[in-house]
Amino acid sequence: MRIDIVTLFPEMFEGVLGHSILRIAKEKYLVQYNLFNIREYADNRRCVDDRPYGGGPGMVIKPEPVFNAIEAIGQQAGIHSKKILLTPQGHRFNQSIAKELAREPYLMLICGHYEGFDERIRMGLDAFELSIGDYVLSGGEIPAMVVIDAVVRLIPGVLGDLDSVVNESFNGDLLEHPQYTRPAEYRGMKVPEVLISGHHQKIKEWQKEHAMKRTRERRPDLIE
Amino acid sequence: MRIDIVTLFPEMFEGVLGHSILRIAKEKYLVQYNLFNIREYADNRRCVDDRPYGGGPGMVIKPEPVFNAIEAIGQQAGIHSKKILLTPQGHRFNQSIAKELAREPYLMLICGHYEGFDERIRMGLDAFELSIGDYVLSGGEIPAMVVIDAVVRLIPGVLGDLDSVVNESFNGDLLEHPQYTRPAEYRGMKVPEVLISGHHQKIKEWQKEHAMKRTRERRPDLIE
Repeated sequence: MRIDIVTLFPEMFEGVLGHSILRIAKEKYLVQYNLFNIREYADNRRCVDDRPYGGGPGMVIKPEPVFNAIEAIGQQAGIHSKKILLTPQGHRFNQSIAKELAREPYLMLICGHYEGFDERIRMGLDAFELSIGDYVLSGGEIPAMVVIDAVVRLIPGVLGDLDSVVNESFNGDLLEHPQYTRPAEYRGMKVPEVLISGHHQKIKEWQKEHAMKRTRERRPDLIE
Repeated sequence: MRIDIVTLFPEMFEGVLGHSILRIAKEKYLVQYNLFNIREYADNRRCVDDRPYGGGPGMVIKPEPVFNAIEAIGQQAGIHSKKILLTPQGHRFNQSIAKELAREPYLMLICGHYEGFDERIRMGLDAFELSIGDYVLSGGEIPAMVVIDAVVRLIPGVLGDLDSVVNESFNGDLLEHPQYTRPAEYRGMKVPEVLISGHHQKIKEWQKEHAMKRTRERRPDLIE
């Protein structure tokens, strides 16, 4: 998969793309990340934002540097990309969207910053608008990292243990059951006996029961 | 505000903490970030994870390096921290939680990775568990960045223009109205005339109407 990131802050991504799963995916040649700075595509001496029409605080990202960037990248790539605009007004990102995106060959993530994008970027771009949650962030960069991490780990071959993807939170629409590892007792807190018993059927039942219990207590909305 | 980050991947944070608002907040001495590597607190030759009891894929973070880290940091700090565990099983993070956290003097964010934390970390720590959304990520690091960004920008003095915080997405429980900046016409797409009119009352009405319209179309759940 090719992932292009169009942003005013490409340097924000290095730490995240250079470690853990995202780095492994790149080292396995399963994904390629390209960072593009919108500022380099501004006609007008690196000016990328301006005051909003009608007044109001903050700055709005101008349409032309964004269109210039996306068109130049598109021409260079020569293939069609699935364009994603990170914005608080977008569809709420979730695991099914992550699974759909993991099947795309080429994602282009476009990050706003400051007070957001000029509306004509939205109108002219035909991008899929995504929001990672109902909170306000200073830009689309961290949301782009969220989307990249959620998507890349679903690409076949990225995680060593395929089961890991199947078994985890949200895949079965339940929260995950509690997990324990060594030592069997720590500061008086013991691992439940059934998990140490080696009785596979009972372990499965315990895990299922506790996944259900945890979901009922914490996220009853997931059960409906 | 003091923000401590307890993680297996401290290097992931440099790019994000070193740019834009998070960097400005630090340069204004309004916030201090400290990164701690859980690995350095492992008794057992830097071993921080182990196979889960009862079987299953992946690795689980062991209790003792996490408790060791948190206790050592707490002793060094000498003051009480609000502890936050980033986990898919937590409360769903939102703007009201961000506002509450912005009033704390000292946050400690604890990031899981791999298949998650040993349950006794949850039990013994009395931490506030937070999830940033219903999708699976490879660790709590990017979620910690989300929380830090959402919280730090609400600390008084961080954003130059205080209005910027009041006016934006989710604060009035509506999505933000469309934003436009120069040029007034771009590729045949024009800025709505009312926004250029200078008629403040009409501009306010247009903004309110379009915030409502956008919310009704995209997030009717926010109106109820």
